[in-house]
Amino acid sequence: MTFLYNAWYVAAWDHELKNDSMLSRRLLDKKIVMYRDENGDPVALQDRCPHRFAPLSLGCLRDGEIECGYHGLRFNAKGQCVGNPHGNGHIPKGASVRKYSLVERYSALWIWMGNNEPISDAIPDFSFLDPKTSIVAKDYLHARANYVLETDNIMDLSHIEFMHKSTLGSSAVRNAVSEVSQEGNTVWSRRLTKDEVLPDFLEEAWRIPKGTPVSRWMDVRWDAPANMLLSVGAVPSGDAPRTGNSTYIAHFFTPETETATHYWFGFGFPKSMGDAGYERANTAIANIRKPFELEDLPMLEAQQENMEDQSFWELKPVLLAGDAGAIRARRVLEALIKDEASDSA
Amino acid sequence: MTFLYNAWYVAAWDHELKNDSMLSRRLLDKKIVMYRDENGDPVALQDRCPHRFAPLSLGCLRDGEIECGYHGLRFNAKGQCVGNPHGNGHIPKGASVRKYSLVERYSALWIWMGNNEPISDAIPDFSFLDPKTSIVAKDYLHARANYVLETDNIMDLSHIEFMHKSTLGSSAVRNAVSEVSQEGNTVWSRRLTKDEVLPDFLEEAWRIPKGTPVSRWMDVRWDAPANMLLSVGAVPSGDAPRTGNSTYIAHFFTPETETATHYWFGFGFPKSMGDAGYERANTAIANIRKPFELEDLPMLEAQQENMEDQSFWELKPVLLAGDAGAIRARRVLEALIKDEASDSA
Amino acid sequence: MTFLYNAWYVAAWDHELKNDSMLSRRLLDKKIVMYRDENGDPVALQDRCPHRFAPLSLGCLRDGEIECGYHGLRFNAKGQCVGNPHGNGHIPKGASVRKYSLVERYSALWIWMGNNEPISDAIPDFSFLDPKTSIVAKDYLHARANYVLETDNIMDLSHIEFMHKSTLGSSAVRNAVSEVSQEGNTVWSRRLTKDEVLPDFLEEAWRIPKGTPVSRWMDVRWDAPANMLLSVGAVPSGDAPRTGNSTYIAHFFTPETETATHYWFGFGFPKSMGDAGYERANTAIANIRKPFELEDLPMLEAQQENMEDQSFWELKPVLLAGDAGAIRARRVLEALIKDEASDSA
Repeated sequence: MTFLYNAWYVAAWDHELKNDSMLSRRLLDKKIVMYRDENGDPVALQDRCPHRFAPLSLGCLRDGEIECGYHGLRFNAKGQCVGNPHGNGHIPKGASVRKYSLVERYSALWIWMGNNEPISDAIPDFSFLDPKTSIVAKDYLHARANYVLETDNIMDLSHIEFMHKSTLGSSAVRNAVSEVSQEGNTVWSRRLTKDEVLPDFLEEAWRIPKGTPVSRWMDVRWDAPANMLLSVGAVPSGDAPRTGNSTYIAHFFTPETETATHYWFGFGFPKSMGDAGYERANTAIANIRKPFELEDLPMLEAQQENMEDQSFWELKPVLLAGDAGAIRARRVLEALIKDEASDSA
Repeated sequence: MTFLYNAWYVAAWDHELKNDSMLSRRLLDKKIVMYRDENGDPVALQDRCPHRFAPLSLGCLRDGEIECGYHGLRFNAKGQCVGNPHGNGHIPKGASVRKYSLVERYSALWIWMGNNEPISDAIPDFSFLDPKTSIVAKDYLHARANYVLETDNIMDLSHIEFMHKSTLGSSAVRNAVSEVSQEGNTVWSRRLTKDEVLPDFLEEAWRIPKGTPVSRWMDVRWDAPANMLLSVGAVPSGDAPRTGNSTYIAHFFTPETETATHYWFGFGFPKSMGDAGYERANTAIANIRKPFELEDLPMLEAQQENMEDQSFWELKPVLLAGDAGAIRARRVLEALIKDEASDSA
Repeated sequence: MTFLYNAWYVAAWDHELKNDSMLSRRLLDKKIVMYRDENGDPVALQDRCPHRFAPLSLGCLRDGEIECGYHGLRFNAKGQCVGNPHGNGHIPKGASVRKYSLVERYSALWIWMGNNEPISDAIPDFSFLDPKTSIVAKDYLHARANYVLETDNIMDLSHIEFMHKSTLGSSAVRNAVSEVSQEGNTVWSRRLTKDEVLPDFLEEAWRIPKGTPVSRWMDVRWDAPANMLLSVGAVPSGDAPRTGNSTYIAHFFTPETETATHYWFGFGFPKSMGDAGYERANTAIANIRKPFELEDLPMLEAQQENMEDQSFWELKPVLLAGDAGAIRARRVLEALIKDEASDSA
């Protein structure tokens, strides 16, 4: 499978991009340098000088321009060469690097790497991560696994019973009522467990009295390529589900290469919660990192290793009830990639 | 060269397979999970769940069945899916993993990875390693070298003069009388040195008075793919050779990949030796590991590295007198692989 | 790009080749073993026994001959097998390893790896490194970068302004008068800066009073494949340049593989300088290693990584004024490689 290029990918959390320094990262198997210009606006350029292919990120950032660290060519935020210290100072034809649209929204930096005009509205709504209105807690993991395996993981949360026994799952999960739906290219995978006694990990996180049977919802919204919003919550059994407060978690997956993925995840709580909200957010992000890092990550990397050079479909996967959402998302993504390929053909 | 599949390979020593735990190992470039069922009988299955390709070895072993650690599919010792916790519990068609015959014999677990019916009698006789009648001392090394290079090494023991000067060899080795013979697909490479004063290492191991000239025999029996029995011993010069007690050492080589090998080696002494036998066995295995690990292993790995991407025959090896046994074994193995390929064509 | 074979490459500094020991090194992607024979004369052989492909460098050196450490074949300095301890001692046909010409000159060992007769006179003149007449200070670095990137680096010293700001460069460098010329296959890249105040690093090294404006010359002579002589010096502004003493530095680059390079660099000072010359040489080599190792090396390795699998020309480099010398050298080298290929076709 190739990548979908005309789409928004998260390239970094906002705090990763500081003033006066550059961040180099491989995204969709291309080296990208990111920085903030004099106004603090984010910039993304191809991280390779057209002269001798030095990474621009090894150079100096001055006045919103990069000076290459090897021979001093200067590039502005549009990727144009604007300074040549050598000879008569003439700017050689073709001396430019590719510029990518990089938009700051929802505490993240979103990059568009395709050739089509970027569609700003196409960034899915993660307004619960808007730092103006929310307390946001953010973290990052790197996985040596294909990014669609990560989509599979989130879209089929039946796995929490087996993989996260002591933290997120319980034996009630298998009896969940699940439902998959699609609106345009957005896929929803919703799951409701009934009369579930949550593991201590969640009872404590959600301040539910120990041993209380609850209805728990875990609803995932997926948008291509692999940006997911998870809303979860619980009410005492008998109460109407999905009426109580939901906790929102974002899962952003961006391919580093075909077999490695950048994984950003974050919580947002209303600013109205004040200090308690900050404490809650910090605790939540620190807690959730543990199952993600210690349980999901090793499994996903082992999956990838086991797949060797074969594609998902070549391996003829056996499909289960819980796969409906993941497979729907795969089909949408595959169609988008196919369309893009035929457009550019 | 491809692998010979319809043959017995050692997959583990018996003690490596404990009750209530799983052992995952790459054999012939395939990931295999091994465990003991409720009766203690050894089981070998493909280590890849057919649903999402998770290694089954990352799951749980319960009542002789494996529960996949990702989504909870259960597999019995035949590799059949016998439990699906999702949806209506229906077992999806095709939900099975390949089962391999795994036989416990001579302190080892023997695996058959080919498509033909396994032939139990085809395991060569290593009854000196039978734990019912013998004191057995076992060890293991991993080599980044093709397994046939290991066969070459054992079948041509003329190398001990040069590679193991201080432990196993002496300058008398070059004058050995050697003899190669074949019975069916079994190849023998026999070697007798005369009037040899053994290195201290062996005089001490075999309790021979220092400086005594001896006749020493080193006889190797090879069976495809790479299972060898070495019987060695010495009598005072003048006595009829091969009349005294032999020490028996097994060398089992199983390809992990084309360029890496699992190497199991072990001694067996009669139980009648009692405590002295245990002491002898433990000392022998600890001593022999040193030249194997510190002298053979670096050489074999350097050979493999030097061969780069070329095959043994492409490199046009110069042949010496001592190669007769190794080349005979290579020819038998090549013929068996060729036959197997034409059978399945 | 393939390699140029019929040419002299540095294989080692003279002191790297000790009596009674062997040195194994990969050169032009071939493993070579080097040693000194009984007369101290340097020998270079293919480092692979023709019997079982063991590296000869793992064997023993005795009386100017190598005994293979695996089965004891002996090879003389011509690469001929001269001893076989096995069987009747007959030397098998074809039992030889390739011998390469290895010449000791200018404190270095020069190897010729092509099939044509080596041309002794073709070694470029580096007599300032002759240990009979000079105090020589030598060092070595290993770079994970193609060797022609190293040529580019030295032939275009305009980079010192940007890469070596605190040691070798200054902002006057961009205004240098530069000049490229060619004599036969030798390319010169000459550079003269005027009214330059040198960085402290150089003022101290060259004992120039702090803040003195100078004329500085930096002249590079290149010979294929990648052997360069750098002569540098400075006189007070107004004095005729290139009249004062020059400091000479050799840069020898030999491909280990397509993407890795051996890098030898050295200073030579007249023996007439006595103790002061030794101190100067030792200080100079220790100082110069720092920018080479900490500034050039990371950039060159990053360039190589950024080029991925593409060739220099495929990447369509933008050319600057300072590239003239590097491109001229590339063109000469490419023509020599092309000629060699058509000769052997």
